[in-house]
Amino acid sequence: MSRLLRRAASLATAPVSALALALALTASGAPLHAQAAAEASPVGENMPPLYADEFARARAFVGEMMEAGVVVPQPRDPGGGYTHEQHKRNYRAILLAGQLYRITGDRPYADYVREMLLAYADLYPTLGEHPARSNQYSGRLFWQVLNDAVWLVHAVQGYAEIRDTLTAADRERIDSRVFRPAAHFLSVESQSTFDRIHNHATWATAGVGMTGYLLGDRDMVDRALLGSDKSGEAGFLRQTELLFSPDGYYAEGPYYQRYALMPFMVFADAIARNDPDRRIFEHRDGILLKALRTTVQLTYGGYFFPFNDAMKDKSLRTEELYHGIAIAYAQTRDPALLSIAQMQDRTVLTPAGQLVAADLAAGRAEPFPFRSMLLRDGPQGEQGAVAILREGEGPRHTALVAKNSSQGMGHGHFDKLSWQLYDNGHEIVRDYGAARFLNIEAKQGGRYLPENETWAKQTVAHNALVVDRRSHFDGKVKPASAVAPEQLHFSDEPGLQVTSARVDGAYTGVGIVRTLVMADVPGLESPVVFDLVTAESDAPHSYDLPLHYQGAVIELGFPVESHVAARPVLGEDHGYQHVWVDATGRPDAGDGALTWLLDGRFYTYRFATDGATQAILGQVGANDPEFNLRREPLILLRREGAGGTTFATLLESHGRYDGAAEQTVASRSRVAAMRHHRQGGKDIVVLTLKDGGQVALAVSHDADPAARHRATIDGQQLAWTGFAAIVEIGRGGN
Amino acid sequence: MSRLLRRAASLATAPVSALALALALTASGAPLHAQAAAEASPVGENMPPLYADEFARARAFVGEMMEAGVVVPQPRDPGGGYTHEQHKRNYRAILLAGQLYRITGDRPYADYVREMLLAYADLYPTLGEHPARSNQYSGRLFWQVLNDAVWLVHAVQGYAEIRDTLTAADRERIDSRVFRPAAHFLSVESQSTFDRIHNHATWATAGVGMTGYLLGDRDMVDRALLGSDKSGEAGFLRQTELLFSPDGYYAEGPYYQRYALMPFMVFADAIARNDPDRRIFEHRDGILLKALRTTVQLTYGGYFFPFNDAMKDKSLRTEELYHGIAIAYAQTRDPALLSIAQMQDRTVLTPAGQLVAADLAAGRAEPFPFRSMLLRDGPQGEQGAVAILREGEGPRHTALVAKNSSQGMGHGHFDKLSWQLYDNGHEIVRDYGAARFLNIEAKQGGRYLPENETWAKQTVAHNALVVDRRSHFDGKVKPASAVAPEQLHFSDEPGLQVTSARVDGAYTGVGIVRTLVMADVPGLESPVVFDLVTAESDAPHSYDLPLHYQGAVIELGFPVESHVAARPVLGEDHGYQHVWVDATGRPDAGDGALTWLLDGRFYTYRFATDGATQAILGQVGANDPEFNLRREPLILLRREGAGGTTFATLLESHGRYDGAAEQTVASRSRVAAMRHHRQGGKDIVVLTLKDGGQVALAVSHDADPAARHRATIDGQQLAWTGFAAIVEIGRGGN
Repeated sequence: MSRLLRRAASLATAPVSALALALALTASGAPLHAQAAAEASPVGENMPPLYADEFARARAFVGEMMEAGVVVPQPRDPGGGYTHEQHKRNYRAILLAGQLYRITGDRPYADYVREMLLAYADLYPTLGEHPARSNQYSGRLFWQVLNDAVWLVHAVQGYAEIRDTLTAADRERIDSRVFRPAAHFLSVESQSTFDRIHNHATWATAGVGMTGYLLGDRDMVDRALLGSDKSGEAGFLRQTELLFSPDGYYAEGPYYQRYALMPFMVFADAIARNDPDRRIFEHRDGILLKALRTTVQLTYGGYFFPFNDAMKDKSLRTEELYHGIAIAYAQTRDPALLSIAQMQDRTVLTPAGQLVAADLAAGRAEPFPFRSMLLRDGPQGEQGAVAILREGEGPRHTALVAKNSSQGMGHGHFDKLSWQLYDNGHEIVRDYGAARFLNIEAKQGGRYLPENETWAKQTVAHNALVVDRRSHFDGKVKPASAVAPEQLHFSDEPGLQVTSARVDGAYTGVGIVRTLVMADVPGLESPVVFDLVTAESDAPHSYDLPLHYQGAVIELGFPVESHVAARPVLGEDHGYQHVWVDATGRPDAGDGALTWLLDGRFYTYRFATDGATQAILGQVGANDPEFNLRREPLILLRREGAGGTTFATLLESHGRYDGAAEQTVASRSRVAAMRHHRQGGKDIVVLTLKDGGQVALAVSHDADPAARHRATIDGQQLAWTGFAAIVEIGRGGN
Repeated sequence: MSRLLRRAASLATAPVSALALALALTASGAPLHAQAAAEASPVGENMPPLYADEFARARAFVGEMMEAGVVVPQPRDPGGGYTHEQHKRNYRAILLAGQLYRITGDRPYADYVREMLLAYADLYPTLGEHPARSNQYSGRLFWQVLNDAVWLVHAVQGYAEIRDTLTAADRERIDSRVFRPAAHFLSVESQSTFDRIHNHATWATAGVGMTGYLLGDRDMVDRALLGSDKSGEAGFLRQTELLFSPDGYYAEGPYYQRYALMPFMVFADAIARNDPDRRIFEHRDGILLKALRTTVQLTYGGYFFPFNDAMKDKSLRTEELYHGIAIAYAQTRDPALLSIAQMQDRTVLTPAGQLVAADLAAGRAEPFPFRSMLLRDGPQGEQGAVAILREGEGPRHTALVAKNSSQGMGHGHFDKLSWQLYDNGHEIVRDYGAARFLNIEAKQGGRYLPENETWAKQTVAHNALVVDRRSHFDGKVKPASAVAPEQLHFSDEPGLQVTSARVDGAYTGVGIVRTLVMADVPGLESPVVFDLVTAESDAPHSYDLPLHYQGAVIELGFPVESHVAARPVLGEDHGYQHVWVDATGRPDAGDGALTWLLDGRFYTYRFATDGATQAILGQVGANDPEFNLRREPLILLRREGAGGTTFATLLESHGRYDGAAEQTVASRSRVAAMRHHRQGGKDIVVLTLKDGGQVALAVSHDADPAARHRATIDGQQLAWTGFAAIVEIGRGGN
């Protein structure tokens, strides 16, 4: 056993938490353990708890890695495979061992990074295209160039911590056989990726730029900042200008925003230290810090809204955001960021991370101000928007999200004007996210599954209007990217929050307007959601409005024909081939309602109909021979042949089921009937409550807050002011 | 506003937690609030936290009830309906207001109980059969007599607290118009229920007996203790002897055990106080305390094993067990019970509850010793058993449950020798439990659904062997109740835990033996589960072995024919009509494997086959027009035509998927192939690992621990001692 390995073994068995550390110091362990703990204690003892945990976690991980010895395998596997995961472990180990060396001054950590990088120096120059590449963007160490960039972003930070401990010869060898060629590969050999305005390029420019700072290579830095030709048309600075909207929204959606944010924040932090005159955190009105806060706003219960190709298990508890929060806090000292760090229960082993941990321990955290907001999309905020409406506080509050944003490039879904609802800690009106098992080899090597194209991206997989059973823009990215919705109205007025948007071009000759109102309605539990979807067209079409819900069906307001003994499929293509049909019905006026139960709360989805609307109850999972899809339920409202049409629906949450106490309250909707009237471009939705009262949502679609409007329903005058209002008609009605 | 109501209003708005109480005392609230809080403080301040919470919760609830005024409606609705829920709220209010009066001495609480009971005195004598009764056991206040008994058990305890505050006239009126007729209704008018050996009778005898103690009516007490004829052939004491096995197992299963336990414990507590010479808690070797501990053992993650007609959301956090734990702790001072109270985060407003809270606050809790155990079923332990095998500690430990018990009366399922597996905090191999939405009116008034008979009770709905596609005992309770399995072997030896049982009579001419082994196997992650199911028969039969799993399908080891565009149903009856068929395959030897993923952990279910076994992948939900069933997956192994057969399967848990860190480890099984050999009544299961090693499970079925056994597999000798062993064959094998 070499001295390094012996030392590694003692580090690996050192305690992994602050508590364990404290115990080890008082208990009489084996001499080696005690010695290791004692050596570590002067450093560990003065750390604030969150930082101490991170320190202990890093020591445990790096200790294990050191005990296993340096393992730098010949690249072979795709995502999730052995060599892929080993190179990921290695870059984490390089970064963390470097940070541990900075904190502890323990030479074995520096030696380990040196040995690891010397092994890479042997391997790296021998590499060509990756054997598991699946497209033109092959990496060297990994199957795609993106992962090589991520490797560099991590490794260069670890290298920076130990580079001055090396002999000139070792330094020269590692510089010239690892970091320079890696930067060259990313910025020159993969120039087309490097000069894109895309998150892959952000990782690449960050890796290359930070390498440039470390090696003192100004050319490298400038190419990273300004693009290969240093014109500023590409490169990191341009990315901060084009990839985020003025509200800090990232066009690909929150899942990718979270991922993109790490190189943005980490490289910006390096720029601030090396080129302070650039005032990078003030660049474009502080766009990077705004983007960080917006990323946090795009969550419910800590989980990102799963727009586009998103993995639904991604939350704020993710490596990228540990860095982001720490860097942003060091810049701003915003106490609300501390509560996010508290929720993450993690930080990073940098001075910024130590500051976060110390201020958290000092009780400086304040709640993060989650609120209703409109986030414009597009570099100038001109490509639609994402509207977030929130009511209530805390982990069970209600949040509505309307996705009126641009296509979001190749990972975008064809879901114009789609929406989601969260309540009671759950996703109630769902978005499927991506069809992918990330890093699971048996599932197409962990890549996107075929069903991501055939189902997850299709319009019918979303809560979005489908015309003639074809996806928006016929499911084609190029025309979809040329068109963005227009946000018509937004109001965060408490008790009557509104978002309204329009899209033209999703279908030839059909304009779509969707207005979502989250309102407090007298006589109903708060809040309820009204949804008005109008298709404007002169020609006859077939219109389908799916709602992807979650829960156990409790009650249907109408009779259905059930396919109980052989289950047919809803259609042939555009995602319809993946829906089993359980039952279909054509409710009479007033009967259009479905009640389900989720985690002790009842939800009734009600739709106005005159008997001409067909309701189809289905389940995802048809034409899925590999069991790639989640078997989730949906209800689809269908109108055939109409020129234009309006779907008016209501989502009412009500009651409570407590299985432990065996108590049930208000399991049934309080609404007896719902009708929709359209008069001169105004929408009136009249609810008749079970207690006999009547109340209406009146929508003028006129953004002027002072404008007065009237409508006559069944001989009764309704008057209101502004875009939308809740109007009490009174008991009994007519 | 009457004085009582004013006082109620102030009580209702008083703070609901100890923390809120503390805040109210320091903040300057509205005078009324401050006054109420101040009045309450001398009492609340000295309470241990758990008891203080309970006190605050009771004050809030009773305050709300008092503010609403006394509401005693004419009985009308079934379970979940308004009058049903109101009478339930009332008995809670009577009990809690009585307890609050005892604790605080505040007269309005006593007055409220008095007013409530006087309202019942007006109503009760006017009542006949309940209008919503569904069978011969109609109640008066509720649709079934059981609920009337529950009402009495609660109400008499509340009445006991305030009875001495009443005028003689009020006392006489309430005694003679509420409690005497309620006891008479339960014990005389409903004598057939009262004299049963059944949990309904336990509630009835408890209510009647406690009423007898309160009213000083020895006849009433004796009939409750010894049955209507006081012979001891029926009544409470006989119930303690016949309803629990010597190991404290209750024949209907844990869900009903939990429910039955409350009247057992509460009445026993009353007996101990009123008839101390009976030494009720020592009766039959301390059976009641044993039953309480056994109830706790029958859980995973706090949730009861869902045997028979069980609601799966039932956990230790249930009213009945707050009473049970407090009473048992007062009797035993067993510190392990304190950790259960801690997990419940609840107790009761009795001196026993106060003791629990105080000792918990004093740090006296110790972990509850969950462990492997055999729980014999039947009054003499002669009717089979439930075997629990556990490995590991804490909320993610592994637990296997084998249900080799008796039928469990009318709520029993036809699932002889079925099993379940829990791991990583989840139910991995599932039991459906009951098909019911308890107390949800829209779902058949909250009663058992038709699918409880057609699906949930049927054999195919369980992890149990089905012969000729018919349920055990043809799905008939009477013959099923006449037969019990025989537990052949049980071992809780660490690393090699075994349960083996046999049942005859489930099918004419077919004996079934099932051996489950939870073992640590060199080369595999621990533990794995081997399952050997042998059907002994001379005549040809069709054999189906379902496994109800939970998770996302990751990998199938064999090609299947998929029903991707029209989904057929598995069969016509005995539950088969509720299974959609997704795909079928007939794996070659060595290929029988299905891998799924649940909450970051992979599971591979592997079965030995020689190519003659058909594997059917299905989903529950066919012939379910009311959407009453959960849409859960299963795999069913089928062998046709054989005389007898043995299914040998392996459940291997492996690897880890971490979505946050995007790390995946060991997503694929470590087993390359599995073969099963049967030699002279011995079973040998040989695993060939992917690293080339071979290891076997050898089962002699001979319980003699010293007996030595041999078998020859492929020319290689295996030798072992005892019932079962893991034998390493070595690398490469032959």
